[in-house]
Amino acid sequence: MDSNKVVENIYLLVIVTLVSVLQNVFFAQKVERECKNQNTRTSAFERVSCANRNCMDAYPTFLAVMWCAGLCLSQAPAAFAGIIYLVVRQKYFVGYLGQTSQSTPGYLFGKRVITFLSLMCVVGIANYLLVRFYGSDYKEYVETITQAATALLLIP
Amino acid sequence: MDSNKVVENIYLLVIVTLVSVLQNVFFAQKVERECKNQNTRTSAFERVSCANRNCMDAYPTFLAVMWCAGLCLSQAPAAFAGIIYLVVRQKYFVGYLGQTSQSTPGYLFGKRVITFLSLMCVVGIANYLLVRFYGSDYKEYVETITQAATALLLIP
Amino acid sequence: MDSNKVVENIYLLVIVTLVSVLQNVFFAQKVERECKNQNTRTSAFERVSCANRNCMDAYPTFLAVMWCAGLCLSQAPAAFAGIIYLVVRQKYFVGYLGQTSQSTPGYLFGKRVITFLSLMCVVGIANYLLVRFYGSDYKEYVETITQAATALLLIP
Repeated sequence: MDSNKVVENIYLLVIVTLVSVLQNVFFAQKVERECKNQNTRTSAFERVSCANRNCMDAYPTFLAVMWCAGLCLSQAPAAFAGIIYLVVRQKYFVGYLGQTSQSTPGYLFGKRVITFLSLMCVVGIANYLLVRFYGSDYKEYVETITQAATALLLIP
Repeated sequence: MDSNKVVENIYLLVIVTLVSVLQNVFFAQKVERECKNQNTRTSAFERVSCANRNCMDAYPTFLAVMWCAGLCLSQAPAAFAGIIYLVVRQKYFVGYLGQTSQSTPGYLFGKRVITFLSLMCVVGIANYLLVRFYGSDYKEYVETITQAATALLLIP
Repeated sequence: MDSNKVVENIYLLVIVTLVSVLQNVFFAQKVERECKNQNTRTSAFERVSCANRNCMDAYPTFLAVMWCAGLCLSQAPAAFAGIIYLVVRQKYFVGYLGQTSQSTPGYLFGKRVITFLSLMCVVGIANYLLVRFYGSDYKEYVETITQAATALLLIP
């Protein structure tokens, strides 16, 4: 049952990771299809390849921050923020393909979600240090506030 | 000894991760050598650079799925599947260099291994939820089946 | 308090990960600014984009090795080596931008830090296997030696 205890603390994070992997495969298949259908120097291939590359560049950062936030504070808000990030990434990818190359949506995306997850990490570590040096545990309050704050991510 | 208990559950995964890092360094050195020997716009450099990039794009996905599978279900089959993935990646990289650019082996590779590892994650989480809500633990049976199923990955 | 015990073993690693994420965002903003200010085919954009891409290619490798080293052996030296890697990466990025394209500093960087972290993993696993099969625990000695050895990384 020891192993089940580990799974208990991470299963939401694992689910979000699996969904993100599915999305990665979806992106990669788009690239593959474009790569086979057309010549490799056309604009459509370049755009889908660039969109995929930008998404992949940001992927390890996202995974690291989400897992740290989930382990340090609590997994439900972290997993929820992860889902929102995946939605933002999907929009970014589709937006990249649909528009002309002059108006592509920048290089960065999902800044708000990454910031939120980073703040969760910082708060989790601050709380741990407080417990260690002062013996006062604010984790319950912090978790409640965090769960409320995730709602702010839904604002467009 | 508490820390040794952590290591017990992950040491095979760590070994596979180390092997994959060695492989990454091998790929990177190939790129570096090609980059220094020749001019940066030749076909050989472009091909090795592209092969390396495709491998690196898929690397975080692989790491995430392998670690999730290892933590959620059991590490031995996950590590074995990881080794097979590394072999497939090596073949892909070598195949990319050897062939002409018209017949390069696509963008995706190792789909079967990634699918297998994802299924392991899903089964592990499903088992955890079964334990939590029904109290019935099928983990032993599942692990036996998983270990048998890894043999299927060896079929070319 | 169980969750705090998890945080205890990883909080230094989480802090280094957060710093590395900040650095990633800094790199990405450099790319974004260059992308907006100028045309996408100029030399400055190509150089900053290439520097960012090389850093991102190596990022999952670094994260994986640092976390493995921190979990398998001890987190303080691993986190310290991580900080040094980030400094090396910063130098690499700045050096890439400042110089002309003929003398760009290769594709690989931070080889010494990655090697050191890999060695930490190997030693940690070897120690675990020794404990398991012979019952002799050299972890304390090994940790002391590791902490001394991190000083070697400071030699330029």
